[in-house]
Amino acid sequence: MRKNYLLNGDLACQLYEHAKTLPIYDYHCHLNPKEIWEDRVFDNIGEIWLGGDHYKWRLMRGAGIEEERITGNASYKEKFLAYASALSGAVGNPLSLWSQVELETCFHVDLPINAENAEEIWERAGEYIRTTKMSPRKLIQQFGVEFIGTTDDPCDSLEYHRLLAEDASFPVKVTPSFRTDNLLCIMRAGYTDYIAKLSKVSGVTITSLSTLLEAVEGRIGFFKAHGCVFTDVGITDFPDRIADCEEADTTFRRVLAGETVDREAYMGFLGRMFVELGNLYRKYRLVMQLHLGAYRNPNSGLFATLGADCGCDCIGQTVNGADLIRVLDGIDRSGGLPETILYSLNPSMNDQLASIAGSFRGVKLGAAWWFNDHRFGIVQALNSLCSIGYLGAFYGMLTDSRSFLSYPRHDFFRRLLCSFVAELYERGEVPDASALPTLIENICYQNIKKRIGECQ
Amino acid sequence: MRKNYLLNGDLACQLYEHAKTLPIYDYHCHLNPKEIWEDRVFDNIGEIWLGGDHYKWRLMRGAGIEEERITGNASYKEKFLAYASALSGAVGNPLSLWSQVELETCFHVDLPINAENAEEIWERAGEYIRTTKMSPRKLIQQFGVEFIGTTDDPCDSLEYHRLLAEDASFPVKVTPSFRTDNLLCIMRAGYTDYIAKLSKVSGVTITSLSTLLEAVEGRIGFFKAHGCVFTDVGITDFPDRIADCEEADTTFRRVLAGETVDREAYMGFLGRMFVELGNLYRKYRLVMQLHLGAYRNPNSGLFATLGADCGCDCIGQTVNGADLIRVLDGIDRSGGLPETILYSLNPSMNDQLASIAGSFRGVKLGAAWWFNDHRFGIVQALNSLCSIGYLGAFYGMLTDSRSFLSYPRHDFFRRLLCSFVAELYERGEVPDASALPTLIENICYQNIKKRIGECQ
Amino acid sequence: MRKNYLLNGDLACQLYEHAKTLPIYDYHCHLNPKEIWEDRVFDNIGEIWLGGDHYKWRLMRGAGIEEERITGNASYKEKFLAYASALSGAVGNPLSLWSQVELETCFHVDLPINAENAEEIWERAGEYIRTTKMSPRKLIQQFGVEFIGTTDDPCDSLEYHRLLAEDASFPVKVTPSFRTDNLLCIMRAGYTDYIAKLSKVSGVTITSLSTLLEAVEGRIGFFKAHGCVFTDVGITDFPDRIADCEEADTTFRRVLAGETVDREAYMGFLGRMFVELGNLYRKYRLVMQLHLGAYRNPNSGLFATLGADCGCDCIGQTVNGADLIRVLDGIDRSGGLPETILYSLNPSMNDQLASIAGSFRGVKLGAAWWFNDHRFGIVQALNSLCSIGYLGAFYGMLTDSRSFLSYPRHDFFRRLLCSFVAELYERGEVPDASALPTLIENICYQNIKKRIGECQ
Repeated sequence: MRKNYLLNGDLACQLYEHAKTLPIYDYHCHLNPKEIWEDRVFDNIGEIWLGGDHYKWRLMRGAGIEEERITGNASYKEKFLAYASALSGAVGNPLSLWSQVELETCFHVDLPINAENAEEIWERAGEYIRTTKMSPRKLIQQFGVEFIGTTDDPCDSLEYHRLLAEDASFPVKVTPSFRTDNLLCIMRAGYTDYIAKLSKVSGVTITSLSTLLEAVEGRIGFFKAHGCVFTDVGITDFPDRIADCEEADTTFRRVLAGETVDREAYMGFLGRMFVELGNLYRKYRLVMQLHLGAYRNPNSGLFATLGADCGCDCIGQTVNGADLIRVLDGIDRSGGLPETILYSLNPSMNDQLASIAGSFRGVKLGAAWWFNDHRFGIVQALNSLCSIGYLGAFYGMLTDSRSFLSYPRHDFFRRLLCSFVAELYERGEVPDASALPTLIENICYQNIKKRIGECQ
Repeated sequence: MRKNYLLNGDLACQLYEHAKTLPIYDYHCHLNPKEIWEDRVFDNIGEIWLGGDHYKWRLMRGAGIEEERITGNASYKEKFLAYASALSGAVGNPLSLWSQVELETCFHVDLPINAENAEEIWERAGEYIRTTKMSPRKLIQQFGVEFIGTTDDPCDSLEYHRLLAEDASFPVKVTPSFRTDNLLCIMRAGYTDYIAKLSKVSGVTITSLSTLLEAVEGRIGFFKAHGCVFTDVGITDFPDRIADCEEADTTFRRVLAGETVDREAYMGFLGRMFVELGNLYRKYRLVMQLHLGAYRNPNSGLFATLGADCGCDCIGQTVNGADLIRVLDGIDRSGGLPETILYSLNPSMNDQLASIAGSFRGVKLGAAWWFNDHRFGIVQALNSLCSIGYLGAFYGMLTDSRSFLSYPRHDFFRRLLCSFVAELYERGEVPDASALPTLIENICYQNIKKRIGECQ
Repeated sequence: MRKNYLLNGDLACQLYEHAKTLPIYDYHCHLNPKEIWEDRVFDNIGEIWLGGDHYKWRLMRGAGIEEERITGNASYKEKFLAYASALSGAVGNPLSLWSQVELETCFHVDLPINAENAEEIWERAGEYIRTTKMSPRKLIQQFGVEFIGTTDDPCDSLEYHRLLAEDASFPVKVTPSFRTDNLLCIMRAGYTDYIAKLSKVSGVTITSLSTLLEAVEGRIGFFKAHGCVFTDVGITDFPDRIADCEEADTTFRRVLAGETVDREAYMGFLGRMFVELGNLYRKYRLVMQLHLGAYRNPNSGLFATLGADCGCDCIGQTVNGADLIRVLDGIDRSGGLPETILYSLNPSMNDQLASIAGSFRGVKLGAAWWFNDHRFGIVQALNSLCSIGYLGAFYGMLTDSRSFLSYPRHDFFRRLLCSFVAELYERGEVPDASALPTLIENICYQNIKKRIGECQ
């Protein structure tokens, strides 16, 4: 890679020189804390890249590679060769750039990834892994990560978070985030089992909405005691109404009794839960993240074979703005909003989302997410954010990743951000250029660091 | 500011040299004609900038400034200092550029606006205001404004429009526009009081749909006699059906009788009113403006404290294209469409709106509006307009503003327009460059001037 | 026109040098095979350009030209002069560039099109037509076209496709495509007559869903025997449910009996038909094209006067992603998807559509279509495709045109594509530039050629 890739001129380069030195706060990701704790040395680049990365699986399907060499029984070497060869057609896909940068940064191999070089890359990367005993913690520390926010179920024991916190040899903060999807999907099979489990871990016998909320509050306290700062939800549905407590209680009891409830009851319950959770988050000074508009598992055939997270999710409909407003205003009126970050997977909602965020104090637009995490998507989101919102308060990048190699995405974002503001300057849109270095540092580092400090 | 800000090369500069000399037709704004008539000398820059500008209030909330220094009891100086300091983080927000240009153009202060310079700016701007006795009419004439279209309720006496028209010392045409929001919102509290008021000012006892329309026609005639050329509507709702006259009459009578009508009845009435108003506009040669997709007052807490227009509105859903088509086609079939301008606050509708406009004679896409009035939004709208519609017939810019200092936005638009067509030329997309100067002049000035002439 | 129009630098020019030599596969268009067979020499440029091109009619309406000189009784010369004069204001509209390139490439006249030059252009183009005896086949061969996919009704005799295939003097493959709109619109007047016609041409007495499908399968076989590779559907509606065969059969029988069915029944029938047709397409190795989101004939007045395809269609709502997923997954589960291409007329769906396509094997995003067939729309679609999908598998351009002069649009697309990937390279987003020439050749030529080969 050329040194200045994605940087569009002198000012961008100059801003980036400082930005690249800033520590990383990866405040929302899907890393497994157990793997960080165990810190097992990797086997080969095929395992690292293709063992669980549904972004790459998806790309390989688009290239026409048969499932055998994607999620099937082929060896990791065969899978790696197939992936390397697919990359030549993936021009403009972020994986093309990410993979090349990961190869150079993490494996110190500087060959273009393609069918011709694939064998040599396999050998040299393997050699590097063995020589350096590459492992999760080494990667995390190599990239200057100071904070990691994982994604965890309310029932989680947080055992590995505790062990990591007690390990003085590993200074990186690995904190749990409170992800409520399993709490909310009352129409999903296995929901009552989940509530039974929550009863057990919380020590609260859950028989009603109020005991549910009591158990949830207990778990929030437990998470908070383990350093939790962020909460999250990423279900497909968004409530189009808010039931009062009595109705929501009735719905919840019916579900516990094994009855099937209709969509209207579900929506009302969901709305009520969003409001109650929002109130608890404010009380415990947690940041509320709403991930809107993901459509999960559209391909029922592959879902039956491979399960969730196999690279077949997609962008869903935009959430109706009036529904989102109802929830935000509902929380605000019933006690006040917690600090809130809104993410939409459907980018056609970016401008609307920025305008809704700007109508409530402490509500912000989040980083371009998942299918939008590429140059065009990031620039599009920055345009909405700066034009309609307030760029200076942005919390910047997060990886949302399941891979220990994803930290170059922070670098990728920093380059794009520096180029973005430099371009605004070149066009004559920035009256006061002296404000830019501080702006960049705040977005890349200080804003989120300060927020986390205030939540503790 | 650099002299050539927003201009992207020689051709753009050359086109702009002429564009900047053209008079301003600000055919849709929210200026108060009483304030123009009274022409009171301003007190200080804090009052001018922060006395009522909800764009700035919103930005300050995004920057985390407490309400006390936004809409609260803090002095205008404290508010100004807070705003100046917030601007450093507002990179890419149009207010950042607007404020700097206003400062230089209206107050002749050429310091970058930031916390450090704020005190000095306050002093120097104040000095300039006092020395020059800066007032609304002086600003209007300084910018070469020839025509202003205000926004007025059908019940308005238009007293100040009359006084201004009679004042030979002030040659600018200040004309009323017929804004029907209060006529249409039959579900809003106070509607029957409004109709009582309309009865009084029109001299028509309103008891039915036909007497309502009789009163409305009377007011349209009255507005027309005061120079009215434009009409407007900006309610959140858009009708998904058109009731026949009998049903609409029944609904209206029920509302007058104090009954509550359901949403279906409201929609039908609204659809009927859109058709009847469209017909009246055509009859009186008025331009029909439809402002689509604003969501008002989502933050009920701030609305209860501060009322409407406090900087908490947002972008609503896109209007369903089929609903818009039903109304346009309904008017067209029942007598013919008036000249019509469509605006959508939700920019994801731009292309669709351009294509719908192009399917009816005399229906055009309007300028990028409100949350879209920034470089990215304007360029996006120009792209939709030129690619799908017919750029040469565009009516160009309007401020939609409540502030007497907003005229630099016309300059801002002209720079962007010149850069936009220059870039098309550089790419090789303009076969006949000799057409460009005329195109620019038509969009900035001649098209709207000609339209206004034809309506009188 | 400058030689390098739309090319943004050396790399783009270099890639284009090869791209421009590649043959054209115009795999989806609306050319009339009878006109190709008859190969009549054209009369004048007015007839060629304005005899049936609703894109141009629409533009002329936007320019305010009266209907008389668009679709009325004015002579072709008057119409041509009006169109030429309208083009000066059509800056940024693709017709402006298309017309200029067509004039130079097809008529060898190198004057800018405007009111001043119009008379001379009329003369010189007429002279060129007469001298060269310009005709459909000459144009097709001049542009290096190897394959044409027309759009044909299932009842069509395909006589002219047969005659063309038998004519050894004309080596271009002109193949029919199976367009099912008339099969599906059971609520449209004349539907039972259509089914009677289908009964006749298929030799199957159609009385039920199963006999309908039997007749359809017969016609598919007939089309296949005439070289058919592609199928298509472009109705406004998209099914929001899938009826089982029994319900769909009942609905169909009721329609045949002259009953009116409600929208729910229609939707269920439509969903069932999409699934059954998808299965037949897979069985016969045909490519399924879905054209989503067109709204037909919004202007009922002009429709009553001029009929369909008069330049008054527009962009409809985006299809609900969940509905599209239901159909794709439904076909996949009931036997497997055919190779599928998705097109959305509403570009705000591009990213979502790319993500849905990527969740099913063999489903791809198609080229920017109709109102999106301009530089901005093409680049926007390429951005969605490469960022979210897999650019290397793209089938590239098609004209979708009714005109024999539209082949420069392939050149237009190739220039934009070369500039697009060159720009990615300049930004540092392409790690392996050696992959680009192959990428370009695949998209412009090899991918679609290979697909067609595999379908035969």
